[in-house]
Amino acid sequence: MKQTIFFLSDQTAITAELLGQTLLSQFDSVDFVTQTLPYIDTEKKALEVVELINRNAQENGVRPVIFSTLVQEDIKTILHNSQALMLDVFEHFIAPLEQEFNIHSSHRVGKKHSSEDKEAYDHRIQAVNYALNTDDGLSVKQYAKADIILIGVSRSGKTPTALYLAMQFGILAANYPITEEDLESYELPSWALQFKDKLFGLEIDVKRLQEIRTERRPGSRYASLEQCELEVSQIKKLYTREAIPTINTTIRSIEEIATKIIAKSHLKR
Amino acid sequence: MKQTIFFLSDQTAITAELLGQTLLSQFDSVDFVTQTLPYIDTEKKALEVVELINRNAQENGVRPVIFSTLVQEDIKTILHNSQALMLDVFEHFIAPLEQEFNIHSSHRVGKKHSSEDKEAYDHRIQAVNYALNTDDGLSVKQYAKADIILIGVSRSGKTPTALYLAMQFGILAANYPITEEDLESYELPSWALQFKDKLFGLEIDVKRLQEIRTERRPGSRYASLEQCELEVSQIKKLYTREAIPTINTTIRSIEEIATKIIAKSHLKR
Repeated sequence: MKQTIFFLSDQTAITAELLGQTLLSQFDSVDFVTQTLPYIDTEKKALEVVELINRNAQENGVRPVIFSTLVQEDIKTILHNSQALMLDVFEHFIAPLEQEFNIHSSHRVGKKHSSEDKEAYDHRIQAVNYALNTDDGLSVKQYAKADIILIGVSRSGKTPTALYLAMQFGILAANYPITEEDLESYELPSWALQFKDKLFGLEIDVKRLQEIRTERRPGSRYASLEQCELEVSQIKKLYTREAIPTINTTIRSIEEIATKIIAKSHLKR
Repeated sequence: MKQTIFFLSDQTAITAELLGQTLLSQFDSVDFVTQTLPYIDTEKKALEVVELINRNAQENGVRPVIFSTLVQEDIKTILHNSQALMLDVFEHFIAPLEQEFNIHSSHRVGKKHSSEDKEAYDHRIQAVNYALNTDDGLSVKQYAKADIILIGVSRSGKTPTALYLAMQFGILAANYPITEEDLESYELPSWALQFKDKLFGLEIDVKRLQEIRTERRPGSRYASLEQCELEVSQIKKLYTREAIPTINTTIRSIEEIATKIIAKSHLKR
């Protein structure tokens, strides 16, 4: 039986999940299944979870592991009585921080919703709307407001990257498809001249591009190896000639693509 | 001078950032500024960071704090020689995990890009495309594929929620605006009958709705208090009558909204 890893929190469990997955990626050969348990914020729920975990331990014959971010002391105490190995982030880091700041932590569940949080939140939503309104070359007249303008051939990953930059970092990211005509004339589209310092080029390997385009329009010229090869090589030359910073999206996750773009273009995250 | 908190990693630093922010939210009264330093993956970069941090410590007269997720031992050793308080996640958790799994961790920088990762990644991108293709009532004919269909009045938060569910969890989330006509007839749109178990209703407080709509169309009937009040109260009745599960989006972050929806509708994250 596979070992079960529980991501557990009295809040969203997103931090526990991300941290746990990051740590587990260091152990390739371990075979496990994961289960996320968010909003365990009452003693009743905590006791039910202990039961679930202990049943899992007995059935599997192998001790489960808990990654948790628990703020409430009473909940944490209950969970420590389960048969799992419990790794709680707050336990390890709150004490040194209390010492460093010389105050006690609030042990309040959930983030406070201050006006500052609200502002940051509204900003992210506005950035998502901006990415949608300027997706795929829409509304070039809004480019003056952009923090960054992603360019690339069709299906090189512009839309998800722009949306992630908006959602995660509140960055105003427009995106514009470089067409066959642009590539044939070896020229940037005319709007690009005045926003040259905002351009960022996405690259993609030919084989991967062909794969993605084939899924979309099987057997088309658009998805043919020749066409993909042509566009990929022509856009590379354009990027070089115009000295546009680039990133290859082929084997990277969206998180990597977005954070590398931020670092390369000196945007604030 | 404010204390500086550094989020630092040899990878994207997203985990360090999220973890650090979660922990810092427990210390309301501490005044600090944050700086994120991703991709610190060479000795040269690590030495530069130590210089930056030590200069910061001297100029501010207060010890900086580092939250880090460092895989490479040599980089970690260099950073331990800075004047900051360093809280490294790997340091605390890798050892108990090595003991538990009875193997050594790989210390490999970056996730491996296995075929399984690629599949999960493609699935997320497809989910983002699905959310875009079915945004705001587009393409009802794709609803059979949906994991969930978000409904609500205009500007209640459907689009960002659907995109977040897709981007973060690979969930196929469509969204459909409930119009004045639907509300006047107290009826769900006709397509909804066959997908009733996929419906999830977003609610929003009148004042907040008015604020958001006013930003969009100031002075319009659409943004008037009367209209917002009417739509909010009518949709509440509709949700109740049709026994549709709901969430109020007013004071919640997009992460909270998304994870609560998943929990309430028993979707897999």
